[in-house]
Amino acid sequence: MSDLAWRKSQGMLAWLKNYQRAFLVGDISAGVIVTLLLIPQGIAYAIVAGLPPVTGLYASVLPPIAYALFGSSMVQSVGAQAITCLMIGTTLATLAPAGSALTLVLAAQMALIAGATLLLCGVLRLGFLASFLSRPVMSGFTSGSALVIAGEQIKPMLGGSLNVLHGWSAAVGVSSLLLMWLAKQYLSALLGRAGIKKQWAHTLSKLAPVVVMLSATVLVSVFELNQQGVAVVGKVPSGLPVLAFAASEAHWRALLGPSMLMAFVIFLFSQSAAQSLAQRRNERLQVNHELFGLGAANLLSAISGSFPVTGSISRSAVNFNAGANTPLASVISSALLALVLIAPTAWLALLPVPVLAATIIIAVVGMIDFDTLKDSWNYDKGDAATMLAAIGGVLLLGIEAGVILGVGLSLATIIWRASRPHIAELGRIAGSEHFRNIERHAAETLPGVLMLRIDSDLFFGNADSVVDYLEQLLNERADQGLSTHHVLLVMSAVNVIDTTALHALIELHHNLQQRQVALHFSEIKGPVMDRLQRSHFMDALTGSQVFLSTAQAYRFLGSGMAAVG
Amino acid sequence: MSDLAWRKSQGMLAWLKNYQRAFLVGDISAGVIVTLLLIPQGIAYAIVAGLPPVTGLYASVLPPIAYALFGSSMVQSVGAQAITCLMIGTTLATLAPAGSALTLVLAAQMALIAGATLLLCGVLRLGFLASFLSRPVMSGFTSGSALVIAGEQIKPMLGGSLNVLHGWSAAVGVSSLLLMWLAKQYLSALLGRAGIKKQWAHTLSKLAPVVVMLSATVLVSVFELNQQGVAVVGKVPSGLPVLAFAASEAHWRALLGPSMLMAFVIFLFSQSAAQSLAQRRNERLQVNHELFGLGAANLLSAISGSFPVTGSISRSAVNFNAGANTPLASVISSALLALVLIAPTAWLALLPVPVLAATIIIAVVGMIDFDTLKDSWNYDKGDAATMLAAIGGVLLLGIEAGVILGVGLSLATIIWRASRPHIAELGRIAGSEHFRNIERHAAETLPGVLMLRIDSDLFFGNADSVVDYLEQLLNERADQGLSTHHVLLVMSAVNVIDTTALHALIELHHNLQQRQVALHFSEIKGPVMDRLQRSHFMDALTGSQVFLSTAQAYRFLGSGMAAVG
Repeated sequence: MSDLAWRKSQGMLAWLKNYQRAFLVGDISAGVIVTLLLIPQGIAYAIVAGLPPVTGLYASVLPPIAYALFGSSMVQSVGAQAITCLMIGTTLATLAPAGSALTLVLAAQMALIAGATLLLCGVLRLGFLASFLSRPVMSGFTSGSALVIAGEQIKPMLGGSLNVLHGWSAAVGVSSLLLMWLAKQYLSALLGRAGIKKQWAHTLSKLAPVVVMLSATVLVSVFELNQQGVAVVGKVPSGLPVLAFAASEAHWRALLGPSMLMAFVIFLFSQSAAQSLAQRRNERLQVNHELFGLGAANLLSAISGSFPVTGSISRSAVNFNAGANTPLASVISSALLALVLIAPTAWLALLPVPVLAATIIIAVVGMIDFDTLKDSWNYDKGDAATMLAAIGGVLLLGIEAGVILGVGLSLATIIWRASRPHIAELGRIAGSEHFRNIERHAAETLPGVLMLRIDSDLFFGNADSVVDYLEQLLNERADQGLSTHHVLLVMSAVNVIDTTALHALIELHHNLQQRQVALHFSEIKGPVMDRLQRSHFMDALTGSQVFLSTAQAYRFLGSGMAAVG
Repeated sequence: MSDLAWRKSQGMLAWLKNYQRAFLVGDISAGVIVTLLLIPQGIAYAIVAGLPPVTGLYASVLPPIAYALFGSSMVQSVGAQAITCLMIGTTLATLAPAGSALTLVLAAQMALIAGATLLLCGVLRLGFLASFLSRPVMSGFTSGSALVIAGEQIKPMLGGSLNVLHGWSAAVGVSSLLLMWLAKQYLSALLGRAGIKKQWAHTLSKLAPVVVMLSATVLVSVFELNQQGVAVVGKVPSGLPVLAFAASEAHWRALLGPSMLMAFVIFLFSQSAAQSLAQRRNERLQVNHELFGLGAANLLSAISGSFPVTGSISRSAVNFNAGANTPLASVISSALLALVLIAPTAWLALLPVPVLAATIIIAVVGMIDFDTLKDSWNYDKGDAATMLAAIGGVLLLGIEAGVILGVGLSLATIIWRASRPHIAELGRIAGSEHFRNIERHAAETLPGVLMLRIDSDLFFGNADSVVDYLEQLLNERADQGLSTHHVLLVMSAVNVIDTTALHALIELHHNLQQRQVALHFSEIKGPVMDRLQRSHFMDALTGSQVFLSTAQAYRFLGSGMAAVG
């Protein structure tokens, strides 16, 4: 990998301009394999969303092409994803009867709103918002959702419930589950021992579900198990998607909130998939391009009669491992999927529901992330508690409330941290002009003088707590019998003082004056000083001094020239 | 004021235990004056909320007593407030016909939910959330709401619209407005010249509205202007509030969101009132006590048939200026208000609506804060834009959307700032073991070695952007022809590395390894190191070194002992 490839973010369609012939084999093989993976996944996740199975295939025809044009990741596979489909299902369930024509229209409207939201966020350059959901929250949300999805699929897999199951359905469903589980555990190693290269063995083993599914379909049709009560998918319309779209104001209104939340979740999953693969490819992502790519993909999904789509981390990893070099792999898979839809799709009607349920369970159980929980527990109990709260939120309150709870927890953490900047009490390193934290260096201080370096910008999020901290410090000094006549704030790390912090400093000055303590400043940076001089800050600070350097302040305050109080 | 009073936060009821006889005169006179102010304000704000006028008086009978028991401020005046009443009115308008008995029940339910939310936040110690709404947002929100309220009162003041007004009503309304405006501008100075002490002149001038209102009531009743079409308040039930409470699940559900938002706004206004007065009294507030006090006040408001209450900055300032020393002033005013309600209240029925409208306009116009807008514009265009957005949000989208927009703007700012910690490139001060920012000091660096001090904790909010920054820096160095073989992260300012940041560092290490750059650490703090050793961090860092001091790292990396790449 050249250093250059790592460095320069690939601009839109740069991959096409710089396409090299050597990329082609990888892109074609990845395109074929991802198509084979997309067929069972698309159908299964459409069922999770409560939509006709064919919509899950539509989800990966046009959207990946839009992503290939505008997105940032080279190997992202855009389409149906388990957790977004659960969210779609939850939202639609309150608005339209399952399986009705209305669900199709509403699902497309969700994709439209989510797509527009993503594009708007891209225009507003809000990509940085992705980094504000912590790993434990994200992981807890994913694990909780996976548990919900797996739980929902147990009944369809057994053709009934744990108590009253349907013999044939349960036999087909459970044996499929077992086969797929065995394949997941051992097939890769087995293929490896059979002499297949490790990476290929790994990739081919991912196709076990499609093999199991096709075999089960053959079995069901040969033995006519559907006559015995094993549920099958039923008629799948053949042909390419038809533009189906209608609007009702009440529905738009009802879909607005959930679809915007959906846009956020789409972005989070896609971004985390793209990021983990970009790291393995030594690429850098343009986070705002990712928003454009996902926005365009969802708009195309809407007009092609599908539902909200996102990048799937597991499918994108298969794409990468199968050799994908550029988004051409996705374009090839789109074309193949379109061919599948044009070809006779009668065989899809015989897909047994218990096998699809088993496919879904196998797929989502892999998302349950006990490792992160265990690691967090060992490393940071707070993070582990956050993760458990996110899991509990999804299980107890539902998936939407779970996301909102996770966002709330993350925000509270950010605000709490932002409100507690590091403040060091400084002393002078003897015989030098260096001033360092007295907690970590043997440094001299002056009697009656408190020198504090604020290691953060001052803004509304921390202004109050900085002032509180300072007042508390003065009280502690008083309790220890130390008098304080001068407080020097060393501003070397302060690049910004916003309006709120400006007022807080002026109020602090007044409070200190009443306690007969003078407030001084040193090392105010040039741009900060320029703005302060445009305000009434300097006029408000009667009796205060502003020093160019801390050393100058130290000499002045130590000389007895400074009036006390 | 003794130093001690400033320092020790007053625990619950500490004011009663430490009550001094000298406080009594001030508390009584403040209690009387605040009662005189509360009568017109309570009635007027109840009208803004779309509720019967008497509920505005109930709002200041029991709630201030609850606040006196649990709250943190000595001089807070709890009761009806213009902006919360506008929010109540907006919420109730969508749920029940104006003036219906249902509005009363719903208003009490809002107080109940808001009260419970405030208490819960107190238990969870979420008081720190108050500091995260910036001054421009708060000020913009207040100004926008004041404009909305004033606009709504023009019609009632004119007894019609600007085009078709009712002569008598407009005459009464506009002349009242004029009188109150003149009093606001000149009365204080006039009383001062008449020999009244400045502070008292100021306080007494605040009573102009009640005098104008009573005079207008006398005028209306003497000349029977209500027969001429001047609207009057109408029958006010006499006697103390009756416990009125009923529940319907659909209503609870509809009120939940708006009431929780209301709790947040209640807390913000009350906290900002309490804080500005605490500073003038040299007191420190217990922010979580404030939550308890407000929560209890709202629960009592709910069970006494009133609506959500908060501390009012203007009324609390009158309370303070009129000499209030302790919450006894509020208790006295509660008792006086109860007497007013027990006494015959027939005169209230004759209060002319145009005069009440004029009272409201005068009160809220004072809240429009052009000064902050002007100051922000001069000092920080970003803050000014934020303030304008908050004003625009309230005017264009409505008050609830305005709050949410303001919160969103503040959060985005905090996240944005949190994601951009300060990182300094270090060099050695020649001949010393001191390492300082090379941008600000003449300091030596080693070829092929990049030393960076991260001036912030590492957590999910900044982990990605720190890694991005570092990779960008390496690219810039490469563009300048500088090779980099070692990156040393100086961790002296890092007190926490959370799970997300831990993984980001491990991924950074892998990325750098692929570029043949080694990642090292120095000055990891003790507690941080202990936790890192419990994780798999150290195992993951093959080829990395952890140095106790930066000087040690500098010697090692400069000695040629470190293998390159």
